[in-house]
Amino acid sequence: MLRVPFEKMHREFERILREVGLSGNRASLCARILAENSLVGVSSHGLNRFPQFVDAIRRGIVKVDAEPVKLEALGAWERWNGNSGLGPLNAVSCTKRSMELAREYGIGCVALNNTNHWMRGGTYGWMAAEAGFQLLCWTNTKPNMPPWGARGNRLGNNPLVIAVPRKDGHVILDMAMSQYSYGNLETFERYGKKLQVYGGFDTNGQMTKDPSAIIESARPFPIGFWKGSGLALVLDLMAALLSGGLTTVQIGRKSEEYDVSQVFIAFDISKSNRSELINEIVDEVIEDMHSAGQLSKQEEILYPGERALGVRNENLRKGIPVDESVWQEVLNM
Amino acid sequence: MLRVPFEKMHREFERILREVGLSGNRASLCARILAENSLVGVSSHGLNRFPQFVDAIRRGIVKVDAEPVKLEALGAWERWNGNSGLGPLNAVSCTKRSMELAREYGIGCVALNNTNHWMRGGTYGWMAAEAGFQLLCWTNTKPNMPPWGARGNRLGNNPLVIAVPRKDGHVILDMAMSQYSYGNLETFERYGKKLQVYGGFDTNGQMTKDPSAIIESARPFPIGFWKGSGLALVLDLMAALLSGGLTTVQIGRKSEEYDVSQVFIAFDISKSNRSELINEIVDEVIEDMHSAGQLSKQEEILYPGERALGVRNENLRKGIPVDESVWQEVLNM
Repeated sequence: MLRVPFEKMHREFERILREVGLSGNRASLCARILAENSLVGVSSHGLNRFPQFVDAIRRGIVKVDAEPVKLEALGAWERWNGNSGLGPLNAVSCTKRSMELAREYGIGCVALNNTNHWMRGGTYGWMAAEAGFQLLCWTNTKPNMPPWGARGNRLGNNPLVIAVPRKDGHVILDMAMSQYSYGNLETFERYGKKLQVYGGFDTNGQMTKDPSAIIESARPFPIGFWKGSGLALVLDLMAALLSGGLTTVQIGRKSEEYDVSQVFIAFDISKSNRSELINEIVDEVIEDMHSAGQLSKQEEILYPGERALGVRNENLRKGIPVDESVWQEVLNM
Repeated sequence: MLRVPFEKMHREFERILREVGLSGNRASLCARILAENSLVGVSSHGLNRFPQFVDAIRRGIVKVDAEPVKLEALGAWERWNGNSGLGPLNAVSCTKRSMELAREYGIGCVALNNTNHWMRGGTYGWMAAEAGFQLLCWTNTKPNMPPWGARGNRLGNNPLVIAVPRKDGHVILDMAMSQYSYGNLETFERYGKKLQVYGGFDTNGQMTKDPSAIIESARPFPIGFWKGSGLALVLDLMAALLSGGLTTVQIGRKSEEYDVSQVFIAFDISKSNRSELINEIVDEVIEDMHSAGQLSKQEEILYPGERALGVRNENLRKGIPVDESVWQEVLNM
């Protein structure tokens, strides 16, 4: 498999983003975020998504020059308007602003409306953790999952991120509310593999491990069945209400997914008089988990973010493995 | 089945709580919380838990007179010490304090350490929603669930509550990170029923729907398998770090579960200039979900909190159905 150095991918993305109208710093930052997503093994929101990302800018669905603007300051909670701008850049701005508010108030919340797909949510968790902040953030999406017990897609899979800084590798949960994303299902399908666990209903309403059957039925399972169905619903409500933005049902009335709602809540743990103890506590929890004993030799016991860190380090050394046809498409853009 | 009026149960609980040393208002409030839990159909954290709750007070594990004390004020985020006091009363105090902070800063966070089991988390979501606040709160617990891929119990099932006020019935998610609680498993076992979905591993490491096999193995599934495993871990870390309290691993070193860590984050949505639109938006989301089409005639499509509201109304009219032997035990206390 072809491997491409991170810097090379970054430069190519930056070149193209400049060509479609991003100014210097914005092009460089946005390119870095997308290349980083491939670097940590999430090409579905990196290289493989890049042509579609650029296409949305070219078609004007995503406004290339738009910057987020503060709508309302309520103290430690602010509402911002993303002005239909680039999802990753809006999310970076709002993560930063939530950290500024946290520096002032201990906790800071920015709720952002009219923004676009943030690509990999873990990006913002990593960014906050690198700066020493804990971060809780989530986004809503278009409807892509049926509520538990229902036929029609009414819920978004609304990814949730929770980040806890740690010297030897940040703990970064980044999970959508569907057991498998459509990207995952397509990967299983491509390699002719069954899912590890039931991932949805087939068109006959039977639980299935066949990825193609779930893609056909469009009925993926929420995590924890009825539980994740409820969690997806309240995350959507909270994102839309706190930001004054669109709900999943309102996003679903558009021709495609844009103008989503997001929430960023940061904690400045360094303000606490116990902040020096924190790294030790996190280490103890991780060590305890790692010592729980593998269920079988095939199983790994991983904390959230551990796999991404390993992939990142390997890909920094060896280059990022790429789908050659997509990479060639990008080189030709 | 014997049914007991809510007021009668409240009075009996209050009588006993006074006898074990709670002062007037505290006895009445604590009794009301426990009776309400039975009223909404969660007797596992109401009547059925009452003898055990009182026993922990009698044994001094739970300090009957302790009140929470502020440790550190960091702006909109405060750390409080629960002083090993009554879990429900500590949680009420901290929910109220988080709402006061939210009234001042838009968002308010109280992180509470050295507290005890809050019984039903939905209590505090309901309380905040009745006052017009959105609330996000969670608790850690003793280790009672293996991390995904592991043999030993290292994670708590760390219940999470998210509450959104609504005129025609608040939306209140209240979910532990295990697919089935031990209380649930015991109920299925008692009625000789299989679980609806795989709920854990048996002692041979096979996924099973047999509640007894999971009780025997002590290996319940996290919701969403690897996903809920990660979520449980970060909720524990956040609760312990923000409160300066014990982690699940530290709680697990005690002879029984006490001195847990909790977080309460409230939003004062009434401060926003869009607050008048909010009820309409929530109604639209709920109506849209209800219209998604039942998968089969047996399936119900419910928003979080909908079932509890129906049970509550029925039990207010007819009385609360009780396990007669437990009720007799309480009458004799």
